[in-house]
Amino acid sequence: MVGQKLAARLIAQGLTDHRDLDITLFDVSFPADAVQGPSRQTGNLADPATAKALAASRPDIVFHLAAIVSGDAEQNFSKGWDINMMSMWHLLEAFRAEHDASGGSYRSRIVFTSSIAVFGGPFPEKIGDEFLSAPQTSYGAQKAACELMLTDFSRKGFVDGLSLRLPTICVRPGRPNLAASSFFSGIIREPLNGQEAILPVADTVRHWHASPKSAAGFLVHAATLDANRLEGRRALNLPGLSCTVAEQIEALRRAAGQQAVDLIKPVPDEAIITMVAGWPRNFDPARAMALGFRAESTFDEIIETYIAEDLPKTSG
Amino acid sequence: MVGQKLAARLIAQGLTDHRDLDITLFDVSFPADAVQGPSRQTGNLADPATAKALAASRPDIVFHLAAIVSGDAEQNFSKGWDINMMSMWHLLEAFRAEHDASGGSYRSRIVFTSSIAVFGGPFPEKIGDEFLSAPQTSYGAQKAACELMLTDFSRKGFVDGLSLRLPTICVRPGRPNLAASSFFSGIIREPLNGQEAILPVADTVRHWHASPKSAAGFLVHAATLDANRLEGRRALNLPGLSCTVAEQIEALRRAAGQQAVDLIKPVPDEAIITMVAGWPRNFDPARAMALGFRAESTFDEIIETYIAEDLPKTSG
Repeated sequence: MVGQKLAARLIAQGLTDHRDLDITLFDVSFPADAVQGPSRQTGNLADPATAKALAASRPDIVFHLAAIVSGDAEQNFSKGWDINMMSMWHLLEAFRAEHDASGGSYRSRIVFTSSIAVFGGPFPEKIGDEFLSAPQTSYGAQKAACELMLTDFSRKGFVDGLSLRLPTICVRPGRPNLAASSFFSGIIREPLNGQEAILPVADTVRHWHASPKSAAGFLVHAATLDANRLEGRRALNLPGLSCTVAEQIEALRRAAGQQAVDLIKPVPDEAIITMVAGWPRNFDPARAMALGFRAESTFDEIIETYIAEDLPKTSG
Repeated sequence: MVGQKLAARLIAQGLTDHRDLDITLFDVSFPADAVQGPSRQTGNLADPATAKALAASRPDIVFHLAAIVSGDAEQNFSKGWDINMMSMWHLLEAFRAEHDASGGSYRSRIVFTSSIAVFGGPFPEKIGDEFLSAPQTSYGAQKAACELMLTDFSRKGFVDGLSLRLPTICVRPGRPNLAASSFFSGIIREPLNGQEAILPVADTVRHWHASPKSAAGFLVHAATLDANRLEGRRALNLPGLSCTVAEQIEALRRAAGQQAVDLIKPVPDEAIITMVAGWPRNFDPARAMALGFRAESTFDEIIETYIAEDLPKTSG
């Protein structure tokens, strides 16, 4: 989903210092409404041969967003490590081989979407840039391991990578997915579409959000960022918006009235409550802010973005 | 080396709640003066079949100390990741398979020797228990990745692991090795044996030390520690002693006089200076202290331990 947003943005706005972008989308499959224009390849990154074939085209910039989501990685342990970690290993090894084959002249910028799931409680009031990564999900552990690899391959000069610890992306368009965080979008998206939404946690839950539009903005900003400014710490906590579920619901009320709020049905889910209890609530992303990354400052803006970009237009 | 110390200690003192210890040593090879008594196996953990064979014997406790050292991992990138990270993966997968085959009743305690190399500067005055892991060597990145895996396999209940971030072990007996930290031992050990030692860094360098005896003590303590007390954070910064090279040299003077100190020859080595500049200098290991781990409190004690345990006895 973020990949589609990113592709659309690159087509519409281009990229600083990169004229005549030649974009290739790679995925296991593409949705019917996928962005038109870029060439497409399908395949599975868990296969080392696939990673080699991708690296052989020597792209200047790679946006690596592929992953199975948190709920899936939690339920399917081997699949999670294979796809979320080992694929990164194969990809990095493939790009290192191209670097070597080029005599050291080729070095791809790799922008990797990590996650705030690399953090686990207990947390300080705000998580700072020097707080430890102690994930409490397999997904978070896999993302953190990928960050370590990407940083080390970069330190050695084989690639030039950044890991972006994305906030929870909200409001996601489309349908609910297996991510335990799916409801954060669902309680806004479904009511705006006149449908019921399930709220599986208490409305006092506080969490860290950014819109799909901001996520695409982060990726574009990271694509051309001067890596020397990272001083060897190539995993970044990105800006976002900290708010409670109750504050989300109040913003929904302002945007769409009480009838929208009435469509939210509290149905506590112990599995989701437990996972969410171990998630970050707030950050002080000073480094990323200093590096020029920007996100929304109110949840109202996040809802406005969904309405402007993704709410299906009614024919009536 | 630490493995030999550990084996000798287990034979001499046993282990709490474990009568009739049945110890097996596993290594790529054994030194001529290896501890006598335990059965021995040789092999290479980088081979998944080897890990499977080890797990099949279903040990109650595994001490995993195998690694190639920092200098070697820095010079030989692929070898470092293969041996230091992928071996851990194979080992954990093998123990998970045994756990599954047992219907969930078998769960090995795995004590893994990690390292303070998981940290990279800039550092606070003292590194606390919530400081980020941002390694600046491949060795450190590999150790940090192993910690993430061990914690996640443990969280899922497949194994019951702890990662011990050992201080630099000093004074190591025997000969210099490829570790960039080798000189910290060399400048004490060689003079005590009447030999010249090279000091490749300035004597203002501050670092974090514990003796081989303390290291064996950490491992034994970790072997029977109640994992519930770790509250999901299974990587521990261990206690040690912070001192400068100049303070090490003063302790050597107190132990063996000026003629010993005169054997230390300053020969600056830029590669070592650069690596050491990125290493931790001091810690506040509050969690490990609360959990009962203990180390030396003066460098004089560390030298006394070397003299008592490891200094070759002269026949004169």
